Amino acid sequence: MSETSHMDGTKPWHATVLSLYPDAFPGVLGASIIGGAEKSGLWQLDTVDIRDFSTNRHRTVDGPPAGGGAGLVLKPDIAAKAIDSVVLADRPLLYMTPRGRPLTQNRVRELAAGPGLVCFCGRFEGLDERVIESRNMEEISIGDFVLAGGEVAAQAMIEACVRLLPGVLGSAESLDEESFETGLLEYPLYTKPREFEGREIPAVLTSGDHGAVDRWRRAQMEEITKARRPDLWAAYPHKKDPKA
Amino acid sequence: MSETSHMDGTKPWHATVLSLYPDAFPGVLGASIIGGAEKSGLWQLDTVDIRDFSTNRHRTVDGPPAGGGAGLVLKPDIAAKAIDSVVLADRPLLYMTPRGRPLTQNRVRELAAGPGLVCFCGRFEGLDERVIESRNMEEISIGDFVLAGGEVAAQAMIEACVRLLPGVLGSAESLDEESFETGLLEYPLYTKPREFEGREIPAVLTSGDHGAVDRWRRAQMEEITKARRPDLWAAYPHKKDPKA
Repeated sequence: MSETSHMDGTKPWHATVLSLYPDAFPGVLGASIIGGAEKSGLWQLDTVDIRDFSTNRHRTVDGPPAGGGAGLVLKPDIAAKAIDSVVLADRPLLYMTPRGRPLTQNRVRELAAGPGLVCFCGRFEGLDERVIESRNMEEISIGDFVLAGGEVAAQAMIEACVRLLPGVLGSAESLDEESFETGLLEYPLYTKPREFEGREIPAVLTSGDHGAVDRWRRAQMEEITKARRPDLWAAYPHKKDPKA
Repeated sequence: MSETSHMDGTKPWHATVLSLYPDAFPGVLGASIIGGAEKSGLWQLDTVDIRDFSTNRHRTVDGPPAGGGAGLVLKPDIAAKAIDSVVLADRPLLYMTPRGRPLTQNRVRELAAGPGLVCFCGRFEGLDERVIESRNMEEISIGDFVLAGGEVAAQAMIEACVRLLPGVLGSAESLDEESFETGLLEYPLYTKPREFEGREIPAVLTSGDHGAVDRWRRAQMEEITKARRPDLWAAYPHKKDPKA
């Protein structure tokens, strides 16, 4: 199977999620255009219950951390069996953890362009390091905060991917000028009514001067990025906008 | 109502979510310890359907962006009516958007320590800027990627808050040594069996020498943070661990 086999229409983009709470799925992924796209066959979601791979009658999946400390650690043998039950078929194996590399729109684009993904959702203190190493798992974080488990992080990542799949967003929706697609945060948006509680839509936007609109929006993008995200601004190549 | 009124046990922590897809809730927030904590009355979730505030019979909530361009913008008058239908009662009004300031564990701790939050979930290209200004909305991003809507971002933020509420995590679970609580990423975790596929638990962790375990873990935290998150490492105060 080639990495682009989903492009010929025979195989939809395929997400498999390993979780101790498979009933948390589809969750938000069952709603809106994302859920609609699954019903239309544009992508496919399935879940694996990690607890099904427990080997004792109490369905235990965790143990105390070696070296002491609070909390519980997901056992390596059980996690490995759950992972090995999934046919990866060129899909990357991801592990959602605050220790991971931050998810970026670039990584989302790569994942959306491939055949899908397999995503392991941690719970408790975390997963035994030896499984992460032996199964070559890619550790991904959605942000610098701590969740109760990887499930909602997996849903966010999958939603970000699915909206980029061909046919998911309506043709009226733009992917080009969004935050991160340009390296800058997006400009402010306005729609009718022209006056809202005494606040007018900025005059330039109703001037009909497309060049002026473009320059205003670009200036707003730069200003808001500088103010809110000095990190993004520092990484921005400061190219002149060809339209400016 | 004081900001700490939830601490006396009379009022649970209260999340209200405004969304065009209220059926996306509770989603993941209905599962695991988070859902269990809601059933136990430790926190409370309700949703407001933004579309209920549309004033025409087609239930329209959006319009084309002033100045042109693709996509649709949430109308300010309808968004404002939806927001004004909610009693904030000292709760902050948040707007989930990739243009926002990145959510941090510090902000999560503040939100969890307060009476709750009110969260507006954007859809389409975004929300008319005049509502964001007039209602003094705090724009928050969960990461540098683009979602189909704010719902899953709201769920991630709420889950991060709820797990910090008193009584939600079992006493066996630690909040102290997690990623971001120390300013460093967490150390690797291991549990039995001692050997997994030829990989042993690092000997120091089974040595019984607690000082050596602490030093090893601290060194691992520093190493992994340096390697994966130079941004966090640069912000880390490089204090000597008193236990080291």
